Amino acid sequence: MISTKAMIGKDVVLGHHIVIESGVTIGDRVRIGHHSVILQNTVIGDDVSIGNGSFLGCQPFKNSKVIHHITDQKGLVIGKGSSIGNGTVIYAGSQLGEDVMVGDLASIREQTNIGHSTVVGRNAKVECRTEIGNQCVIQTGAYITADMIIEDNVFIGPEASTSNDKYMEPTKVPLKGPHIKKGARIGNNATLLPGIVIGENAIIGAGAIVTKDVADGMTVKGVAAK
Amino acid sequence: MISTKAMIGKDVVLGHHIVIESGVTIGDRVRIGHHSVILQNTVIGDDVSIGNGSFLGCQPFKNSKVIHHITDQKGLVIGKGSSIGNGTVIYAGSQLGEDVMVGDLASIREQTNIGHSTVVGRNAKVECRTEIGNQCVIQTGAYITADMIIEDNVFIGPEASTSNDKYMEPTKVPLKGPHIKKGARIGNNATLLPGIVIGENAIIGAGAIVTKDVADGMTVKGVAAK
Amino acid sequence: MISTKAMIGKDVVLGHHIVIESGVTIGDRVRIGHHSVILQNTVIGDDVSIGNGSFLGCQPFKNSKVIHHITDQKGLVIGKGSSIGNGTVIYAGSQLGEDVMVGDLASIREQTNIGHSTVVGRNAKVECRTEIGNQCVIQTGAYITADMIIEDNVFIGPEASTSNDKYMEPTKVPLKGPHIKKGARIGNNATLLPGIVIGENAIIGAGAIVTKDVADGMTVKGVAAK
Repeated sequence: MISTKAMIGKDVVLGHHIVIESGVTIGDRVRIGHHSVILQNTVIGDDVSIGNGSFLGCQPFKNSKVIHHITDQKGLVIGKGSSIGNGTVIYAGSQLGEDVMVGDLASIREQTNIGHSTVVGRNAKVECRTEIGNQCVIQTGAYITADMIIEDNVFIGPEASTSNDKYMEPTKVPLKGPHIKKGARIGNNATLLPGIVIGENAIIGAGAIVTKDVADGMTVKGVAAK
Repeated sequence: MISTKAMIGKDVVLGHHIVIESGVTIGDRVRIGHHSVILQNTVIGDDVSIGNGSFLGCQPFKNSKVIHHITDQKGLVIGKGSSIGNGTVIYAGSQLGEDVMVGDLASIREQTNIGHSTVVGRNAKVECRTEIGNQCVIQTGAYITADMIIEDNVFIGPEASTSNDKYMEPTKVPLKGPHIKKGARIGNNATLLPGIVIGENAIIGAGAIVTKDVADGMTVKGVAAK
Repeated sequence: MISTKAMIGKDVVLGHHIVIESGVTIGDRVRIGHHSVILQNTVIGDDVSIGNGSFLGCQPFKNSKVIHHITDQKGLVIGKGSSIGNGTVIYAGSQLGEDVMVGDLASIREQTNIGHSTVVGRNAKVECRTEIGNQCVIQTGAYITADMIIEDNVFIGPEASTSNDKYMEPTKVPLKGPHIKKGARIGNNATLLPGIVIGENAIIGAGAIVTKDVADGMTVKGVAAK
């Protein structure tokens, strides 16, 4: 189903059972696999490639525990030349730069901005209101919490985990994720606590639990098994 | 494809390429996104909202290593006013209460009961025969093993991990997941061993490895990186 | 959409909205759920069961950060009697043996071989060029990196994490994942560093950070929370 109110560019290749809703703009030479769904007002740049079964431009939903979700986000924007995998879920109200790659089964929530040439790995989860710079690699399965800042050229290892909720219960303290500065590298399955700052070019070892700020250029490690 | 043997309520909004099989009951004012599949005998309450590409009422499958899976589960029940995200997989034989929220790409297996107003986060994985209480938050990517009990008002942080298999090989010892009592809070990426009891209102720090019972109200923490 | 250039066996059961592309071979008595997509040149053995919304035979994609991906892989092969869950993503250029089970929302990349009767759990992620033996269990959510060897009868616990990239930045050092020998068992949420060898029948405790080789039959554990 392709809405008559969508704008489709030149030389676009579309798979079977695709849904393109009204207000969508699809650039030239875009390729979309089977079963993908492009929801209202999404803007897809030229030369973007989208896999099978991806859902782009989704609105947040909620229940009585998460009443703050704003379920009327504006359109998603995907920059020129980006690649989106299979089975991804990307929300309206976010913006991906040019040459971004999003792996299979990854999800990205609303109000998030991702710079150019950044990789969001397979099964990675990026929450809302997070800023991610250029040329970053967010590896497979990593968890990027809400209200977090990731500067340029950061490497986040597979399955690394972050959080933004110090008290793990409703409080008046605003939620705040980690701030990871330029060029920092986080090992696989590391655990970062809320609100900490990881300095420029700092290195966090695999599996480390990081409870406080790490200065520029420092290396911290967890305790190895015996 | 909507089976003539399904019962569809009033003012239901259905997307494109939906499959609704025989014996399904859909309540009033239910909304279902594109490409979702509602399998045999699933019962969906009034005012439920379902995203795109979700598969509800799936049967377990198996190979010669997991021969105990029962592949003929009865219908799934989803309570009134619940919200189910995009790309979720929820099995037959389970029951979700009212006002439950299930995030994108989450999965819930058979014979699991979830109380009212509980959140099962994006990419969370809930195994079979587990009981989850009311008003719990199971955060993004958390792993809830089989044969586990989670009481009311529990918070499970992002990417927290549980297990039920002490010997990691076939034995005569029955599998047993952790028992997490009322109001306990588990930090992100914590690791819980099989069969342990986390007491009421206990707090488990981010990244902690919990090998034995934790008393009511106690706090335990892992070792921070250096 | 079933291509006229696909070969479909006897007594095959197909769901709605299925796509089967050209050059695909489907064995006898295969069952495929709704919305699944079988891409070019995939070969599916007799008695294979595939869930809903699975994408089989996908090609890798890339951006300027991951230019080494080879996006013209040959067909995927799935052995006789295997079970593939719902919402899975499996790439072309890989081979699954007989009686393999792949859980819901799991993904397997190109150039990977998986032996017979092995389980790849729900949400597990298996990267490219990895060899996995017979009768292994890769539990729910585990992360199996690229260029890794897993011998027969290995157990990898839920959410266990591996890596192959010691320097977490582009270097001339080849990437190398862990080598896990016969019968070894890895606890849930354990962290394995690049290139280490886990000996035969070794046991790695839940949550352990393993930074160096573990000898045959040895047990290593992480530090429990206090």
